[in-house]
Amino acid sequence: MGVKEIRTAVKCDFSKPAAEQEGFHNRWHPDIPSIGKIANNEVVKIECFDWTGGQIGNNDSADDIRDVDLTKIHYLSGPFHIETAEPGDILLVEIQDVQPFQDQPWGFTGVFDKKNGGGFLDDIYPEPAKAIWDFEGIFCSSRHIPHVRFPGLIHPGILGNAPSAEVLAEWNRREGELISANSLPRDVAKPPEPQNAHAGGADAELKTKIAREGARTIPGRPEHGGNCDIKNLSRGSKIYLPVHVTGAKFSVGDLHFSEGDGEISFCGAIEMAGIITLKFTVLKDGMAQMGTKSPLYIPGPVEPHYGPGRYLTFEGFSVDEQGKQHYMDATVAYRQTCLRAIEYLRRYGYNDYQSYLLLSCAPIQGHIAGIVDIPNACTTLGLPMDIFDFDIRPETKPEKLDMGSCAFVDK
Amino acid sequence: MGVKEIRTAVKCDFSKPAAEQEGFHNRWHPDIPSIGKIANNEVVKIECFDWTGGQIGNNDSADDIRDVDLTKIHYLSGPFHIETAEPGDILLVEIQDVQPFQDQPWGFTGVFDKKNGGGFLDDIYPEPAKAIWDFEGIFCSSRHIPHVRFPGLIHPGILGNAPSAEVLAEWNRREGELISANSLPRDVAKPPEPQNAHAGGADAELKTKIAREGARTIPGRPEHGGNCDIKNLSRGSKIYLPVHVTGAKFSVGDLHFSEGDGEISFCGAIEMAGIITLKFTVLKDGMAQMGTKSPLYIPGPVEPHYGPGRYLTFEGFSVDEQGKQHYMDATVAYRQTCLRAIEYLRRYGYNDYQSYLLLSCAPIQGHIAGIVDIPNACTTLGLPMDIFDFDIRPETKPEKLDMGSCAFVDK
Amino acid sequence: MGVKEIRTAVKCDFSKPAAEQEGFHNRWHPDIPSIGKIANNEVVKIECFDWTGGQIGNNDSADDIRDVDLTKIHYLSGPFHIETAEPGDILLVEIQDVQPFQDQPWGFTGVFDKKNGGGFLDDIYPEPAKAIWDFEGIFCSSRHIPHVRFPGLIHPGILGNAPSAEVLAEWNRREGELISANSLPRDVAKPPEPQNAHAGGADAELKTKIAREGARTIPGRPEHGGNCDIKNLSRGSKIYLPVHVTGAKFSVGDLHFSEGDGEISFCGAIEMAGIITLKFTVLKDGMAQMGTKSPLYIPGPVEPHYGPGRYLTFEGFSVDEQGKQHYMDATVAYRQTCLRAIEYLRRYGYNDYQSYLLLSCAPIQGHIAGIVDIPNACTTLGLPMDIFDFDIRPETKPEKLDMGSCAFVDK
Amino acid sequence: MGVKEIRTAVKCDFSKPAAEQEGFHNRWHPDIPSIGKIANNEVVKIECFDWTGGQIGNNDSADDIRDVDLTKIHYLSGPFHIETAEPGDILLVEIQDVQPFQDQPWGFTGVFDKKNGGGFLDDIYPEPAKAIWDFEGIFCSSRHIPHVRFPGLIHPGILGNAPSAEVLAEWNRREGELISANSLPRDVAKPPEPQNAHAGGADAELKTKIAREGARTIPGRPEHGGNCDIKNLSRGSKIYLPVHVTGAKFSVGDLHFSEGDGEISFCGAIEMAGIITLKFTVLKDGMAQMGTKSPLYIPGPVEPHYGPGRYLTFEGFSVDEQGKQHYMDATVAYRQTCLRAIEYLRRYGYNDYQSYLLLSCAPIQGHIAGIVDIPNACTTLGLPMDIFDFDIRPETKPEKLDMGSCAFVDK
Repeated sequence: MGVKEIRTAVKCDFSKPAAEQEGFHNRWHPDIPSIGKIANNEVVKIECFDWTGGQIGNNDSADDIRDVDLTKIHYLSGPFHIETAEPGDILLVEIQDVQPFQDQPWGFTGVFDKKNGGGFLDDIYPEPAKAIWDFEGIFCSSRHIPHVRFPGLIHPGILGNAPSAEVLAEWNRREGELISANSLPRDVAKPPEPQNAHAGGADAELKTKIAREGARTIPGRPEHGGNCDIKNLSRGSKIYLPVHVTGAKFSVGDLHFSEGDGEISFCGAIEMAGIITLKFTVLKDGMAQMGTKSPLYIPGPVEPHYGPGRYLTFEGFSVDEQGKQHYMDATVAYRQTCLRAIEYLRRYGYNDYQSYLLLSCAPIQGHIAGIVDIPNACTTLGLPMDIFDFDIRPETKPEKLDMGSCAFVDK
Repeated sequence: MGVKEIRTAVKCDFSKPAAEQEGFHNRWHPDIPSIGKIANNEVVKIECFDWTGGQIGNNDSADDIRDVDLTKIHYLSGPFHIETAEPGDILLVEIQDVQPFQDQPWGFTGVFDKKNGGGFLDDIYPEPAKAIWDFEGIFCSSRHIPHVRFPGLIHPGILGNAPSAEVLAEWNRREGELISANSLPRDVAKPPEPQNAHAGGADAELKTKIAREGARTIPGRPEHGGNCDIKNLSRGSKIYLPVHVTGAKFSVGDLHFSEGDGEISFCGAIEMAGIITLKFTVLKDGMAQMGTKSPLYIPGPVEPHYGPGRYLTFEGFSVDEQGKQHYMDATVAYRQTCLRAIEYLRRYGYNDYQSYLLLSCAPIQGHIAGIVDIPNACTTLGLPMDIFDFDIRPETKPEKLDMGSCAFVDK
Repeated sequence: MGVKEIRTAVKCDFSKPAAEQEGFHNRWHPDIPSIGKIANNEVVKIECFDWTGGQIGNNDSADDIRDVDLTKIHYLSGPFHIETAEPGDILLVEIQDVQPFQDQPWGFTGVFDKKNGGGFLDDIYPEPAKAIWDFEGIFCSSRHIPHVRFPGLIHPGILGNAPSAEVLAEWNRREGELISANSLPRDVAKPPEPQNAHAGGADAELKTKIAREGARTIPGRPEHGGNCDIKNLSRGSKIYLPVHVTGAKFSVGDLHFSEGDGEISFCGAIEMAGIITLKFTVLKDGMAQMGTKSPLYIPGPVEPHYGPGRYLTFEGFSVDEQGKQHYMDATVAYRQTCLRAIEYLRRYGYNDYQSYLLLSCAPIQGHIAGIVDIPNACTTLGLPMDIFDFDIRPETKPEKLDMGSCAFVDK
Repeated sequence: MGVKEIRTAVKCDFSKPAAEQEGFHNRWHPDIPSIGKIANNEVVKIECFDWTGGQIGNNDSADDIRDVDLTKIHYLSGPFHIETAEPGDILLVEIQDVQPFQDQPWGFTGVFDKKNGGGFLDDIYPEPAKAIWDFEGIFCSSRHIPHVRFPGLIHPGILGNAPSAEVLAEWNRREGELISANSLPRDVAKPPEPQNAHAGGADAELKTKIAREGARTIPGRPEHGGNCDIKNLSRGSKIYLPVHVTGAKFSVGDLHFSEGDGEISFCGAIEMAGIITLKFTVLKDGMAQMGTKSPLYIPGPVEPHYGPGRYLTFEGFSVDEQGKQHYMDATVAYRQTCLRAIEYLRRYGYNDYQSYLLLSCAPIQGHIAGIVDIPNACTTLGLPMDIFDFDIRPETKPEKLDMGSCAFVDK
């Protein structure tokens, strides 16, 4: 009976690089050694690095964004051995809380250089840019994007169980085929990459294997979730994750203070380090019983919420900016939808990079509206009007405010 | 001062075909004659046919769905000349109400034959199917999909102003190019089609021109909106529509009692005939002042609403059902997301066509979750748990209920 | 199979007084003859007069408010015999829809003369006043209270089953005792009143009895509900009503387009005539099984909704305007809370009667906040900021707008 | 630029009694010395004791509840001198966050002994009782009230500025008059009480004065707020507090993890110690400009939220449990409403004290429904159905579950 503080299952040491700490890893592989056991039905706290492992500073230059080393990202906390979990089970993970570290009350949103990572709109906005966000309790605001302020819908960008050897092989096969067939002038997927692979507590021999075979953490994948970047997989959510190996080998990381649907600038959420509180429950034979091949979840009951009538909503279609008609392409449509919002925000004096950053991280609603009316997919983007401290309704005459600027690369 | 009933600007005559009534048309063309004037700031009621113009019956056979004539669809009410509207203006349309006809308290949802219209999942579900929905005040339920019931988020599938000759030419150019380049074994767009073209009150010569040039009504298009099929463009919404011709030549139709994001089965909303009440306000020079090329809108403040924690949410990725990896394809991802939901619903005894129909018309939330994590786009589909009269949470042991069947083609 | 329009169980004839129509009555009594049968599980439409039976006009004078005859109010539609209902059952009534008559798209809110009805604040605001509201689809606005507009949360003020003879006797006993003991300079309850009693289709002898014994319709009462004036007992609600006599003898009336918590000006909702669609289901032995003595309900899922952060909220305590401390008196506290809101709204140029009318009928949230901190009860009143077309936040400098005036008595 | 942790303005020392710590006080008086300065626009963290100052233990006995010393309660943190604040100003306080202490993840709800504090229903439930709540991130659950779990709407029960000498004198006058006039067999208010008065850092002489004159902290009061116990004055809220003395002398305390409207069992919220993060902004001459005599607030945008259709709602009227008719008494009505809910919950096996505790602390909605229909006030109580892990809808056949018991006094 009585007071009981929750156990912290792994801690971040900010005095040395994440790459040197055994409690973290940055590839998906079944052989990465577990860093500890968690009982069925146990609640633990897990500390997490920000997704760049500390490469980005709280300053007014985007030089660090331009120079980010993408082989070093996503130092995930784990993997954890969840007791009693076996392949075919479902691991039910309840997200009981997510908090930034008390002494790091800030996060960042970046637009990557088109030549180093890029983003959803990099054909149009190829330069690096950055916004720093200060956390004010449940709210955040940015000196780089004035006149907006909103509460966070805080969540992990990544959580998932380790792939089995078979699942990993399938990932490498299908992504390898995509890479092989690629004719676009850009990377379409990232193959295994030994450089800067961090295999946690693996010994040298095992580390070599993992570095050679391990799947990159950038994409989410249907078999286990991973880097889904789902904005409302927030506090109070329950997620049902397929188990592929004994003990599940669960990992988590890439915490976000807030994100907009699509996380369009790639480094697009409000990225932060912090602490997540999770409860683990094993549902035996869950995959068969639920008939599921991919994760599913029930969001939490606590969200920032604006009334339905408080969203200024833009429409976009699968006709690209050169006037080319695409066939039912929701990706093209959503890009157009985002561009319409950026164009609209110019009337208030925001520069396009500020708007691009804002749409990436503010709680915007990106919907598939129509996906059957050939040849045009239609998507919508709902921008919550109440995050602005001025009136953004179309019929209100706009006044240009002093919007300053986001951070750019030093000249 | 005193009581004033709202004027009805056009009425449906159900005693004869829509094609024989001058107040309606089924092509987009600047030369279709206006059927009446509406003053700036006026409120009017407009009667609308269902989108098939009455081809579908309230019965238990999908024969009519199989045999639907798609050249005869979308008899839109209009066009209306909005006084003072000129090209470059924005027409602000407030949707004050939408109601079914009192003596037609029902609607339908169909899965088209893959050979005649098809739908988003027609590779997997090629057969025609149908569900009839009975309206119970604000609610609806279906004898063809038992154990669900939900309130409508009632809205027009189509509204928009006429294209100018230049806009129309652009549509025909770009869609023609797509058709010319097509190598898929399916229609990717619909070119102008003289058969069954209805040009409203046009005389024979003009009708011939319109039939030859007029754009089909199936797709929404960025310049004017049109068939956007946006589920929350419902009562109380304000939509800002670009004006391309003098008088705007506004048309509306294709009323829906409810729709799910994507309207996936194509004939996917709960289709109905009814009455819409609209207020029209001309915003002079609105396109330049708002910096907008496409419609935008603010939804109404009245929606059915479930708490955020009441959506069972499925994830899907751009890996198709053959295991092929696609590059950042939100359309592929959303198809997979839908399939995950259909697979899940099998555990309660629904057949796949019932679930396909349900996802098309119930108020499901289809979100772009992540659109930057190469190579996988991730989309989500939130299914409101409270529309079912049994508990669909994953950890609740399912009981198979008597789910009957949707309507299929007669044997 | 097929189209089926819903049966209308009783119709209003606006060509003659309600008092002359047999389908209506204005007293509660077990012996008022049923005007028709409704089957268990049947859905019907019921037409209703406004609560004054047409005494108030759509004009700019409050003379009719001043002169209203309160013995003539509440012509309820019914009573209906619900088949299979017996004492001890619960009658589950689902409110499927409520609509104004299409040719009467308006309603009224009144402040009664202190000498004829009065209201919650009549010590401070004793004069008659009135506002007319025009319905614009789901919205309403008033020429008498400019710069506000809101969607209705439409509902019946009154619904309930007839009392048994025993229940009626209990009502007359306890209210009689209150009247006998009264030392306040105002009416504290209304005893049976033969004048203008309308007993529906009763013959002369029965009518005399009913007129002598019948309970007035003004108060709600715990045994059956009645005039509860609950603002969110709206479309989609299910209410569970105790049955006291064979056939239930259900009645309904006093439709409201909208109301604020408390309905403070007495004639305080937006009062209207209209049509309500109800479904009736008998739950056998429901009172014992649910352990209930009073009605309970589950509201509908469709409400106008503003985010929680969009309510300007006033606090009030049980210290009256003379500085007298009352003991835990939530009624006194709520009166003070209303006064604080009225005082605040003066800064925008509203006169106090306009604000009084507005608080009565707009969707304000009146909460019991603290009821245990002796000696002060604390209540709150949340005013939705989004119903105003200007910014009412305290830190925004107010501009006085032309607020015109509500209707007063002609000079 | 860069990381900056928020300053903590006062800390709790749990190694000694609150009464011995200078940063806290338990009376309202203008002369209590300020414990520190806070700049205009500054954000600070403030640590707070639970309202009993640690008298209640995390155990299974209500002995401590029975024996609580009510002269020792409400050790408030402060008072703080807010720079630039002068009488007539408004102090705008934004609640940026509230958190329990990390090593005290629990709280308590108590029913006081009728002879020592009592509560809203103490005539019916006079015994002491207790429930301990464990915090699970944003959720809480109790071993004493099984089968419920809900997220907290965390807030301070008390915050306010010091009264001026004049305001304090007015409080003592009017509450003294109430006490003098009292004929009820219970305390109706608490006069100044020297015993256990804690005047913070006051010297002996000043302490004597404060102990003699200082107002008790139990009631909220219209001039400054104080113990308002408003459940949605939670994170993200902005409250506008009148300033009566130079520097405002702001104090805060009595943190609640959750509360139901009315906080009916008096020790009725989920009481906890913790940390509150506040931002202070002085609005010069705010009282005159806002025309306000009492605090007002705008709630935060982040609340647990259930759809409107997920509240089982009880009705109550001003007829008491002896059948006596009261005149328009919302306090009587709300007591009856609470009793209806308690009676209903018996069908699931909860004992009445469990239900009484639950209604006190769960996020129930207590509304003033009708306050004008003489003689009956009508109030409603909305119980969120989704906090239960079983179906509490009336038409679902109840199964009695093992509900254990809340804590009672040891025998």
